[in-house]
Amino acid sequence: MIDRVAIIGVGLIGGSFGMALKSRHLAGEVIGIGRNPERLKLAVELGAVDSWSDDLEAVSGTDLVYISVPVGLELRYMEQIIPYMKPGSVITDAGSTKAEICRGADRLMPDGVFFVGAHPMAGSEATGVEAAVPDLFVNAACVLTPTERTDPQALDLVRRVSEAVGSRVIEMDPESHDRAVAVISHLPHLLAAALASLAGERSSSDPRVLELVAGSFKDMTRVAGSSPVLWRDICLSNADALRAAASEFGSILQQGLDAVSSGNPDAVESWFASARRVKDSITQE
Amino acid sequence: MIDRVAIIGVGLIGGSFGMALKSRHLAGEVIGIGRNPERLKLAVELGAVDSWSDDLEAVSGTDLVYISVPVGLELRYMEQIIPYMKPGSVITDAGSTKAEICRGADRLMPDGVFFVGAHPMAGSEATGVEAAVPDLFVNAACVLTPTERTDPQALDLVRRVSEAVGSRVIEMDPESHDRAVAVISHLPHLLAAALASLAGERSSSDPRVLELVAGSFKDMTRVAGSSPVLWRDICLSNADALRAAASEFGSILQQGLDAVSSGNPDAVESWFASARRVKDSITQE
Repeated sequence: MIDRVAIIGVGLIGGSFGMALKSRHLAGEVIGIGRNPERLKLAVELGAVDSWSDDLEAVSGTDLVYISVPVGLELRYMEQIIPYMKPGSVITDAGSTKAEICRGADRLMPDGVFFVGAHPMAGSEATGVEAAVPDLFVNAACVLTPTERTDPQALDLVRRVSEAVGSRVIEMDPESHDRAVAVISHLPHLLAAALASLAGERSSSDPRVLELVAGSFKDMTRVAGSSPVLWRDICLSNADALRAAASEFGSILQQGLDAVSSGNPDAVESWFASARRVKDSITQE
Repeated sequence: MIDRVAIIGVGLIGGSFGMALKSRHLAGEVIGIGRNPERLKLAVELGAVDSWSDDLEAVSGTDLVYISVPVGLELRYMEQIIPYMKPGSVITDAGSTKAEICRGADRLMPDGVFFVGAHPMAGSEATGVEAAVPDLFVNAACVLTPTERTDPQALDLVRRVSEAVGSRVIEMDPESHDRAVAVISHLPHLLAAALASLAGERSSSDPRVLELVAGSFKDMTRVAGSSPVLWRDICLSNADALRAAASEFGSILQQGLDAVSSGNPDAVESWFASARRVKDSITQE
């Protein structure tokens, strides 16, 4: 499908993308690029990439560059690799927020080099190429976020590669994507962290609190184990949408609490019942 | 260990308790009591109880009565069975909130009949005896909530039975228990429901929102599939503690949002990092 692919940042996502390309024979050669030779050698050993380089010039001669570095660093990497990109080549990414990156990329791209924003909604609280697996993207959503400047052929290439590694491809404009993931992913991470911190504060006055931890609490705080640096960057790059989502969330939660305070059983039951209808509609999909 | 046990309300919890007693040979006879003969016959077929009755008088002659009905109905059942209880017998329960029930039971119990409040922190969004399993309580916390009126021998019996079915027994006074479960269980259920409802509201203007659902959102809304009636009763019976927990949660969440709004990377990172420390301390336990 593609001759030569470079992956910048060979961690959980980048490493899984490399494994998916190689196990499905989608690329002639996969080059891993990063800053830490030891980590890159491990990526080769684990079969995530064929070869490695700690020099960004290694993108020269590749047909597709996959940038999977923290969102706060993406545009800096793009600026640095553009001089080495060959005419007709395509850059895509795996960033969790898209408006800043896609608008920035539109400004940076020279004629003949094409950017297509992408967000594979896979991953976990695990990090590093040690956690990479070739089937990470299977049945997971991958949002492509073309803008009015996106080249149709480049978009088509990224779509075909995304589908080939197993993703369910969805297209959205970058701003709609950011509003949606604020609700589906970023706010949930903040809620998980706040809930874990609340339990921590309570346990300082009564240590038995943490001994009571059961299924619902474990589920709801699982992602509080995620990387603080990664989530710092994601939240900072999507601050407006996150605040809006938190504000709407606060209103809905307050309706539930008001119903409880009023002591009106029907109001409380119907508040929970409408949430369950949404939950059931998602489970059925 | 016990001659005859009655279980009032043979659903997920009551049915699992019956299966645990029977599979571990802890009781001579287990009688299931409820209102619906068809469901009770099913409980016998599934091996949750040995026999059944839809008459509360069936508690007469039993040594231990296990009440596992919605918390809002518990005291009413207690009032009705007290006339049939034999001298020296013990009533325990599986209610998710304890202050109202334990204080009410202390008022109701005649001389020679003993109540010990219990909350086995097991269960799931599944309901009904069909979901019951004999190992539901294994390694799960079970909080016993004695009051100054609790009989030491009755407490000892309930502790031994709870440990025998696999629970990790923790003792707390009823009010401390209610404050703790507001944080560990009740607030998480409200948050899950509010998050599901938020996604539902957003999806009415952009249906693709629900297509983006990924791991973190699924984890955090799993319990939004729980019974609205059950959670209505639990929240109403623990309203004060729930409001206090929600208020503290709101302050912590706001600190995180303020850090994001300020654009201060260190503040955001350290907010996430302190949550992760709590999460890690729980995982290690």
